[in-house]
Amino acid sequence: MFESAEVGRTVTKEYFVKEELKLQTELLNAQQALREAQIPVVIILSGVEGAGKGEVLNRLCKWLDIRGIQTYAFLDEAEEERERPRYWRFWRVMPARGKISILFGSWYSQPIINRVFHKIGNRRFEREFNRIVDFERLLTDDGVLIVKYWYHLPRRVLKKRIKADKKEKQRHESGTPFFKKFFKRFDEFLAVSERVLRASDTGFSPWHVVEASDGRYRDLETGRILLAAFKSRLAHIDRTVNVTVQPALQSTNPDGSTVTVLDRVDLKQSVTDREYRTGILRLQRKLYKQAWQAYLQRHNTVAVFEGWDASGKGGAIRRVTAGLDGRLYRVISIAAPTDEELSQHYLWRFWRHIPRAGYITIYDRSWYGRVLVERVEKFATETEWTRAYREINEFEAQLCEHGVTLLKFWIHISPDEQLRRFKEREKLVWKQHKITEEDWRNREKWAAYEAVINDMVAHTSTHYAPWTLVAGNDKKFARLQILRTFSDRLDEDLD
Amino acid sequence: MFESAEVGRTVTKEYFVKEELKLQTELLNAQQALREAQIPVVIILSGVEGAGKGEVLNRLCKWLDIRGIQTYAFLDEAEEERERPRYWRFWRVMPARGKISILFGSWYSQPIINRVFHKIGNRRFEREFNRIVDFERLLTDDGVLIVKYWYHLPRRVLKKRIKADKKEKQRHESGTPFFKKFFKRFDEFLAVSERVLRASDTGFSPWHVVEASDGRYRDLETGRILLAAFKSRLAHIDRTVNVTVQPALQSTNPDGSTVTVLDRVDLKQSVTDREYRTGILRLQRKLYKQAWQAYLQRHNTVAVFEGWDASGKGGAIRRVTAGLDGRLYRVISIAAPTDEELSQHYLWRFWRHIPRAGYITIYDRSWYGRVLVERVEKFATETEWTRAYREINEFEAQLCEHGVTLLKFWIHISPDEQLRRFKEREKLVWKQHKITEEDWRNREKWAAYEAVINDMVAHTSTHYAPWTLVAGNDKKFARLQILRTFSDRLDEDLD
Repeated sequence: MFESAEVGRTVTKEYFVKEELKLQTELLNAQQALREAQIPVVIILSGVEGAGKGEVLNRLCKWLDIRGIQTYAFLDEAEEERERPRYWRFWRVMPARGKISILFGSWYSQPIINRVFHKIGNRRFEREFNRIVDFERLLTDDGVLIVKYWYHLPRRVLKKRIKADKKEKQRHESGTPFFKKFFKRFDEFLAVSERVLRASDTGFSPWHVVEASDGRYRDLETGRILLAAFKSRLAHIDRTVNVTVQPALQSTNPDGSTVTVLDRVDLKQSVTDREYRTGILRLQRKLYKQAWQAYLQRHNTVAVFEGWDASGKGGAIRRVTAGLDGRLYRVISIAAPTDEELSQHYLWRFWRHIPRAGYITIYDRSWYGRVLVERVEKFATETEWTRAYREINEFEAQLCEHGVTLLKFWIHISPDEQLRRFKEREKLVWKQHKITEEDWRNREKWAAYEAVINDMVAHTSTHYAPWTLVAGNDKKFARLQILRTFSDRLDEDLD
Repeated sequence: MFESAEVGRTVTKEYFVKEELKLQTELLNAQQALREAQIPVVIILSGVEGAGKGEVLNRLCKWLDIRGIQTYAFLDEAEEERERPRYWRFWRVMPARGKISILFGSWYSQPIINRVFHKIGNRRFEREFNRIVDFERLLTDDGVLIVKYWYHLPRRVLKKRIKADKKEKQRHESGTPFFKKFFKRFDEFLAVSERVLRASDTGFSPWHVVEASDGRYRDLETGRILLAAFKSRLAHIDRTVNVTVQPALQSTNPDGSTVTVLDRVDLKQSVTDREYRTGILRLQRKLYKQAWQAYLQRHNTVAVFEGWDASGKGGAIRRVTAGLDGRLYRVISIAAPTDEELSQHYLWRFWRHIPRAGYITIYDRSWYGRVLVERVEKFATETEWTRAYREINEFEAQLCEHGVTLLKFWIHISPDEQLRRFKEREKLVWKQHKITEEDWRNREKWAAYEAVINDMVAHTSTHYAPWTLVAGNDKKFARLQILRTFSDRLDEDLD
């Protein structure tokens, strides 16, 4: 893969200056067009240590309009990052629509380094390939343009450069603290890198290997590749969200004629007041201790609450939090997204709230909105919600691999029970804010929602993050069921 | 201060239930009105460990509409927080307009704990008072409603409660890991707390000490205080930004008749090409090493670039970054704020980019927009920009106290030189995006800007963060001056 970048290409100064002018003008125009088309761009600068990535960055900042460009380096890991699934840090730096993020190091860095220094085995290394391809597909599916550069230098050039640098008192990258360590394992580094590059060289996100021996050639080539990528993306503006169309998944009939998983929930289950009172106190006490235990073990918990309107999500959440120390949990109520959130992939606004190690985050509604309300109301296209299952599973897999206990509750009630509660809400003054026209409209789509919920459970109930379908007609029974599940799962996952 | 909360107030269950209904309805209405009026609310829950702050939080979540409420606890410090000035963590959790943040622990916690455990002396402790009062004034000036609760329990009640808890197997807060440590120093804790409370009990942000012996009384009182605070704030919607009006500062005449600091900049200074070439290389090499040194010493650097249109900010920044490893710096170009940013105090969007320890952040334009363009264009009211000097100085003081090296450059050019550059920009295709109608309009306000810049320097050039006025007519001279200043300051501040 790298042989093609050991040819020894050079460019004269005169040629460079002439070409630079043209290139810069065209790049600026293309950048402006991308901004207008609201296309986000991720540029990844990677490659051999000492190839001049910093100089390339500087050149790009000169050629492009730096307003709307952000650069990020992933030099070392902060605790805030270690305490969350690894991709959290990449989600943080994703460009908003129309903006450009230039990444210095990326999701490629750690797998490569860990493999070179034998911190991970081959299997783990290869698993990372899938994660990377999945992530890049998710981004490009959402309209992001990814331009990936790999700057290559033959060993002999690098060696010469180091010698020259020593004379020049190490102005260049060979002066960095990592350089020596890296240079010793040069061949291994190349071999490992090549494997990742091949595995992640996809049609939607190809690699560009650039020969870096000559600075002018390197920069000019970078600019030309960028311009070509800009132009090709601009030529396909309309295909934004359909870059890879996957076939729609099989779904039950929206008329509700088929049996759904919800039919298996026995809504007649109930508890007596006495059972409830003693049960809830016992469970809350247990949970209280478990939460502190989790805190001391730096163990994360994420609980998702979904359910029909008026199914009692809020009340159930309060019964859980009543059993928790106020310092150990946060409730995130998912409301309308802000414009910063709208300007990103839909999962972005959930990633940003992922808690640090030791805490509990409760989502009152969640990322499942994508395959529930957004599907029914057609806010998401079919392509978007069908691929969302996979995106969600991958997201949750990352949480669970990081050691997060993930709980997902769907509180089920019957249509009759919902009607009764709606009417009650209308009567009680302090509950009136909870019932709107929209709730009545949603009610009419009961059958459509049933089908959609069935699909959701079918596609996203995984062994690592199963759905708990809660029998919600009796609120007290539901609360006990939820608290018991919560506590049992923590029992399993805590040391 | 706490005697008034040792009276032994209680409330019967019947009375509570009756009052709760009324209170909840009124609170919901007031919350709705606050949302419509776009008023942000900060609720601080603090006080004696074991007084039931968690229960209060749960009650508030029941009474209020939890959409639009976020709770935050400051239980332990993350590295991400330690690596930045302390108030960074509080800025992160500030509510957007119309939203509510409930803080469990706050800017009060650490000074109190540190003083009780003798980690800070008296003087340092008292300095914290000023910081707190300043911060709360900044918030209320910006329209934030702050409601501060202190929950008090007499020692004997607490002791009884612990005994009961032991029987109940520690369900309550006495089961937390901190409780014992805290209880041992109960009296000291009260004495220290009282001092902070008195010092921060201001008209714009008063304290509410609530007796917490009886849970029902405690919660009802909390609700009533909150409702009263909501109502009083709603009664003064119009005064939003003028809560405390400070007298306008003395300023030079906008007609430019007076001499400004800019007149003292000798614009005739220049360098030869030869001096430039050798100088820039030498300085960049030095800077390169210093940046790595700073990284290894976990030392932060923040550089602010301001200047006339076409004064050469971008080119100067690129000459600095050319001397830096791409992994060690970030350039933040200040563009139009997002709606999340608009929904906060104007300093919020600068706080969010404060780098972790070891890195360099370069702001291309900055928080000084408030006292420059926003003042001239009247985007900020007189009250707003006059108080901005103080807010900026306090912000920068926090950076510097944290050990950040803060550099501020104003690049000065003459009107004639600007005209020459504008015309040049219009001619060169790849520079046309840099010149707009607005630039020509700004040019007509030269004299007004001169006066405003003079004020800015007068009020914000501090010993810890002085302004560097750069002679910019000769771009090369300017770049050398900037790089030299940069490098000299790092020399001073690095070990």
